[in-house]
Order: sequence, then C-alpha cells, then structure tokens
Amino acid sequence: MTEKELTQEEIDQLLAKANKPAEDAVRLHPFYQGKMQTVPKCSVWGFDAFAVWYTPGVAKACRAIADNPAESFRMTNRANTIAVVSDGTRVLGLGDIGPEAGQPVMEGKALLFKYLGGVDAFALSIGEPDKRPTAEEIIKFVKLLQPSVGGINLEDISKPKCYTVLETLRNDPEITIPIWHDDAQGTASVVTGGVIGAAHHVGKSLDQLKIAMLGVGSANTRTAYVLEATGVPLKNITMADSKGIITKDRPDIIEQKDYDMFKYDLAQKTNEEGLSGDFGVATEGADVLISASKSAPNVVKKEWVSKMASDSIVYANANPIPEIWPWDAKAAGARVVGTGRSDFDNQINNSLGFPGIFRGTLDVNATTITDEMCVAAAHAIADIAIQKGTTDKYVIPTMDEWELYPSVATKVGMKAIEQGVARNIMEEDELHKIASEKIKYARDLTQSLMDNKFIAPPI
Amino acid sequence: MTEKELTQEEIDQLLAKANKPAEDAVRLHPFYQGKMQTVPKCSVWGFDAFAVWYTPGVAKACRAIADNPAESFRMTNRANTIAVVSDGTRVLGLGDIGPEAGQPVMEGKALLFKYLGGVDAFALSIGEPDKRPTAEEIIKFVKLLQPSVGGINLEDISKPKCYTVLETLRNDPEITIPIWHDDAQGTASVVTGGVIGAAHHVGKSLDQLKIAMLGVGSANTRTAYVLEATGVPLKNITMADSKGIITKDRPDIIEQKDYDMFKYDLAQKTNEEGLSGDFGVATEGADVLISASKSAPNVVKKEWVSKMASDSIVYANANPIPEIWPWDAKAAGARVVGTGRSDFDNQINNSLGFPGIFRGTLDVNATTITDEMCVAAAHAIADIAIQKGTTDKYVIPTMDEWELYPSVATKVGMKAIEQGVARNIMEEDELHKIASEKIKYARDLTQSLMDNKFIAPPI
Repeated sequence: MTEKELTQEEIDQLLAKANKPAEDAVRLHPFYQGKMQTVPKCSVWGFDAFAVWYTPGVAKACRAIADNPAESFRMTNRANTIAVVSDGTRVLGLGDIGPEAGQPVMEGKALLFKYLGGVDAFALSIGEPDKRPTAEEIIKFVKLLQPSVGGINLEDISKPKCYTVLETLRNDPEITIPIWHDDAQGTASVVTGGVIGAAHHVGKSLDQLKIAMLGVGSANTRTAYVLEATGVPLKNITMADSKGIITKDRPDIIEQKDYDMFKYDLAQKTNEEGLSGDFGVATEGADVLISASKSAPNVVKKEWVSKMASDSIVYANANPIPEIWPWDAKAAGARVVGTGRSDFDNQINNSLGFPGIFRGTLDVNATTITDEMCVAAAHAIADIAIQKGTTDKYVIPTMDEWELYPSVATKVGMKAIEQGVARNIMEEDELHKIASEKIKYARDLTQSLMDNKFIAPPI
Repeated sequence: MTEKELTQEEIDQLLAKANKPAEDAVRLHPFYQGKMQTVPKCSVWGFDAFAVWYTPGVAKACRAIADNPAESFRMTNRANTIAVVSDGTRVLGLGDIGPEAGQPVMEGKALLFKYLGGVDAFALSIGEPDKRPTAEEIIKFVKLLQPSVGGINLEDISKPKCYTVLETLRNDPEITIPIWHDDAQGTASVVTGGVIGAAHHVGKSLDQLKIAMLGVGSANTRTAYVLEATGVPLKNITMADSKGIITKDRPDIIEQKDYDMFKYDLAQKTNEEGLSGDFGVATEGADVLISASKSAPNVVKKEWVSKMASDSIVYANANPIPEIWPWDAKAAGARVVGTGRSDFDNQINNSLGFPGIFRGTLDVNATTITDEMCVAAAHAIADIAIQKGTTDKYVIPTMDEWELYPSVATKVGMKAIEQGVARNIMEEDELHKIASEKIKYARDLTQSLMDNKFIAPPI
C-alpha cells in the first residue's frame, strides 16, 4: 500500500515544477493586460440597432421592468450575471494584500465562472486607499449591487468579517438573490464530494465515518455543516485549531463566542467523546483526516496518520504546499490521499463546484443556495468518479471531465426546485439541456476567439 | 431657406416610425436576454492554463501588485475597464424608475462603450428595495469600486444628487481615476462640438456668439462651462429655466444656492445685459439657441426662433420629441437645426463623445477628465465635419463615421498629457494607433461573434 519515499532532489524538482505557473503568470498577465473583457450578446445589425438597444427604443424595455420588476431577469443579462466581491484581506495563501493585489485572483475566478459554468461574472475588488472596508460597508455594497446581478460570490474575505457579511446578507429579507462564500460553501461542497467518493471507494458508510479536521476556519467550519447535512453526524467529527482539539468548555472559544460563532457552535456539537489535546489525539482511529491549515510540510505528522483506522482517507488541502506530502501520508499508511494541487492525485479543487453550482442556481433563478444544494453538488461531483469506477488515485473527478458541470448544475437546480427556493420551475432533462448548452457556448466561444486571433497565443 | 411645413399626417407617420425601435426593443431584449456578456481576453491553451490564471501561478501576479500598486493597470484588465453607475433616478425621459428598470439603459451604454470605443464597461445600477441611495451612499460605492476600474461613468442620476456625487468624487484626493457624468460632461462635449461646427459653417466666431439656452439642468449647466472653456464668454450666454431667464438677483436661485450651486454661479456670470422675462427675450438677436428642456413640441416657440439673428443655429435636444420640430424651426428662419434624433439632420448624439473620450483617457491612464479635455473632444468632433465640408444639414458627424472615435481619443489623450494629468506619456501618432486598434478590435470581434453564430440574427 505504501509508496517509495521521495529523495530531497525529487522533492526539489517537484517544487521547481510548481514554480513554473508563477513565472508564466508574471509574464503572461501583462501580455494580455487582464483576463476578462466584455462583448455584445445581442446583434449589432447596423447603426439602427442602437435605436433599439439604446435610446429611444430601450425606454420601452425599461418601462416593462418598472411595471414588473421580475422582467429584469428577462430584459437584461441579470439572470446570467454575478459579481465576485472581495476586499483582498485573505487572498490565497498571501493574506491581507488589499483589493488591487487581489484582483488577479478575482479576474481568474471570473474566467473560471465563464469557461466552466457559462456564467458572466464581474470581478469587483473593493476598498479605499489603505483602508479595508468594514463588514457593514461590504454588506451595503452588496445590497446596492443587487438590482444588477443574479447572485454574489464573496471571495477571500478575512475571518470573522466573512461570517458577518455572509450571515447578515443571507438573513436579510430584502436580499432575494443567492449570496455565496466560495471559501466556505464552495470548498465544503468539493471536500464533501471527496469524502463521499473516498468513503464509497473504501466501502465505509457516511453515518459511521469518524472524521478528524485540522483548522477551524471558514472552509472546515462550513465543511463540517455540509458533511452533517450529507449524513455524517457532527458528534463523529473532532476538530482542532492551533491550540488543539476544540471542546465544549475551552475558555478561549467561550470568550470569543460572538467573534467566532461557528467555532463555538461546533465546539458544542462535535467531539462526542470529549477528546482534548493535540490533533494527534483526534486522528487516532479516525477514518478521514481533513486539514485546511498552514501551508507547510509536516503540519500533519506522519505518526498521526499512522494511527488512523485501516483504509484511511487523508485530504491535506492547504495550498500550494499541503500539510503533509502525499508520499509521506501514503508511507504512513493512508489509502486514499488528496491535496489541493493539480499535479497530485485526487485534487480537491473548488473549480469542480462553483461553476456548476451557480449555473444551476441561476438557471432556476433560485433566491439562495442552501446547504442541501451543496450536498446535491457534492453527490454529483462524487458520482462522476463513482460511475467511472473509483481507484485509490481517483475518488473525485478532475476539472477536464466536462460532463461534471452540467451534472452539478442539474442536481443543484432540481434541489432548489424541490426546496421551493427556485423561481423558474422545470423538468430535470430540460435543466440539464439548458445548462449543457450554456457551458458549451462559453467553451466554444473561447475557442473561436483563439481560432480567429482575437486572443493571441501565449508568448 | 425655409422648408415646407409637414401635414399632420406626415407628422403622424414620423411618430409611428419613431415607435418602431420601442416595439423591437421589447421583443428583442428578452430574445437575447441582455446585451453584454463577459469572455476571456487571455488564452486558455489547456487546463494547465488555469494554474497560471488562477492558483497557484496567479499569486505571483498578486504579489507584483502588492509590491507596486501601479502594476494593477498591467496585471488586470483595470486599464481598459470602467463602471457605468446609476441609481435609476432620472432615466432618459422616464424619470425615477429605479435601478432595475434603468439597467437596460446602462447595459446599452456598456454596449456603446465597447463597440464604439473598445472600452470594457460593467453596468451597475444600484439601490435597495424601494429606497434610492443617497449621494453619500453612491460616493462610498464608487470609492470602494476604485481598485477594480480605470474610470467611472455616472449616468442618469437626479439633480442635485448628481452634482454632489460628481463634485465630491472629483475633489477627493483619494480618487485617482476619472469620474465622469455623461449627462453633464458628455452632453456638453457633443453640444459644444455642434456649436463649433455650426459657427464655422455660418462664418461666425465663437467669441462673438450670442447664445440663448433653455433649461438649467446638468446638461446645459456643464455645456455653458465647456462653451466658456472653448472661447464663448459666459457673459454672452443667457439661460432660462421654467421660471424664465436666470438673473443675479432672482430670489429662488439665491435661496437654492447650496442645492443648485451651478445655477447660482451661472446666474452671476451669464446674461451680461441683465435680461429678464421669458425665454423669448433671450432669443432676440441670439446666434444660437440650445434647449435641454421638456420633451414636447412647441416648448420652443416659432416666434422666438424668428427673432434670432440671421444665419441662426437651433439645437433642440430633448428626446424623443425635440422642443421644436426641425421643420418649424426652419420655417421660422433658422439656418442650421439639430436635435437628439437619429432620423433628423445634425443629431446631437452623446455617442459621438464618451466612447472616444474614455478611449483616450484610458490609453494615457489619466487621473481625471478636465473641461479642457472636453473642449479637445468638441473640436475633434466638429473637425470631422469641417474637414469633409459642412452644409446646413451636416455640421456635426454621424456615429457611423468611424474615424471620429480614434480622433477624439487622440485629441483628448494628448490634452491630458499636455495638462499633466496622464500617467502614460506617448506621441500623438502612437496614441492614435493604439486607440484605432482597440476600437477596430471591438468592432471586428462583434462581427466575428455574429458571423460565427455566437450571436443569433434578430427574430
């Protein structure tokens, strides 16, 4: 079951290879001067088209919306448009680098939204010079934006601001479009997909799984709740932060209850056995290890993995360096190992989730994205691998498996209809057809732009 | 010089024709489900491209900006992106119809920005349910947006909010991108272009022109200042609102000084002769009549036009119905007549201005758009007609004269460089080449989307 350990030279080669995208990035970003542009969706058949698309004709489209606000989803691109909103306070592994510096990530997200999901996204990194927006300012910004968009993707906002922003907006009755925090719900959907696929592969049932999670940030927090909605009892999960296992009575957690309400809540509901101490105590006999912690090797120790149950599953999700190298986890006895990296097996990749999830959400014009819709996405993700046949190295699909995105969209949209949060009701096969066509359109369009030299080949 | 008067039947036919774009608009807006979409600007050569455009590679582009914020104009599409921001409180002739209902106009504006100017624009109509944003909220929204965009186009915001928003933002030292109100500066640039072209045609010099203006809203207000910057002394201009000619001592204007600071200022500086009474008093002996007032026929009376100087110029700019029908103005003795309509001669069309003005402004990365840059645009607009040879029916170009846009861009950009507000310094021919290429790219790209069926023909 174990694989050979890598030499330091081999590890250095892997890291050098991992640096290539970074070198390409600083050369190619200025070459293209950005990653996304706007183009017409409507015919410009001649100059009289502007009398229809602009004044005087457009006034009648405006009046139709003034008479019936729901028409804004037909008369404009709102039904297919979202905003990616970030304040740049927790960008990738880079921390608080600010909105200007975070914008390449948000533009990249807009690219993935379109190419993989057929969703039009504006990348909006917001802030004032040397002053990060408060939670209240981000909330106000998003509320003001609502009339122009069909949804909001919050991204890379630091904790606890991200909780305040998300929860306030999701509970505001005046917000009737989905508000999504990809670092929380998106990651949770994909990690849960990975757990479903791996559990299926090793023949363990979800309600019996014992799970140890390292890191109690927005990703693992929401993952715990989505796992619960999937059938993993919270009591079977044990979580640890930098101070060790979280418990009902840890004074720092009680003290910070208002600041970090989810950590407090999970400290009450997880860890039925009342374990305490370092993370190694939690991994003893665990079936699954999920870390979303510090990006450095050996944050998860080999001896911790070696004490896990048989057929153990390890997801070490920090980027770019996972908390344990896959070969080390394998050597310590893990059967299924996944990381956040595309160059290793079983990549836990958010891009498997958000494009299809938003595709389905927008196609049924849902007012929100529930945890149950995340569960539907997780199952759709895992099902791709399960239907093809899982192996230790393949329990979750890769992002080039195109059938994934319409499948996720369909399952998410049908769940929204079932839960009564959709405003467009349709049959499953109709939704699948619509989603497939929109995603294919985006891909074909991109190819056409390259074929017709509107996008130059990279230098 | 006069033309035949139209029969009521002929007028009815004209109005029926004017309704066609409206009927097309309510049919075609839902057919296309919006007018603008997002597409990649960068190559997606394969799935490993996402390791460059997104994590892990993108982090190095982020770091480059964190080290030097000016890099945000190279590493993202910021240098070519603006936001069209409106609260929907004064949309076309429709009044306060709200942000959802105003959005088709803003999307139309984004279409014009791209197709005519090669500028990527996000249409952002903002507001909370049944609550229009305050001036302070719009100001905050725009300030927060700054890191993502190279400029802001304010649109269809009611008075005096539009003044407060524009002036506050333009005078805020923390704002280092151009803030533009197209209903004010844009209209002013094009009207001034029309005045330059017409004055040239009839052989009158700008500093001798006597101008009567009906309407003291944001359009005519800024037009007065831009005319002044072009060489028309403010003392030679007389303005009137619904209460009659504005004068130094009109009590309502003094009372509303803080509410409408520009009307107050112009009341002090215009109307050297101290005229008072109705607008007909102002037009006596005037060389130019400019109305931006109520959209209805006979708001400008024929007898007022008949008392103007010889070779008189009439711009009746209300949409869709001008304040006086062109045939009536001609019958009353006007030599050059223009309106806001594309189906009559000498259209005063904002689309002649903003696409080229923003093209040039962005290409030199200017921090603002000064009145002098508006004057440069006005001259560039008029010069197209002057170089081709003006006639009574052609003193200003039409929007299909493609050479206009790069020409406006170049003159505006060079003026910005001359005034020291540009961050990219270049030679005039280089700027002209860049602007021409970007505009041609947008046009060719749109054509390619239609040719390759990514945009269906209209039904």
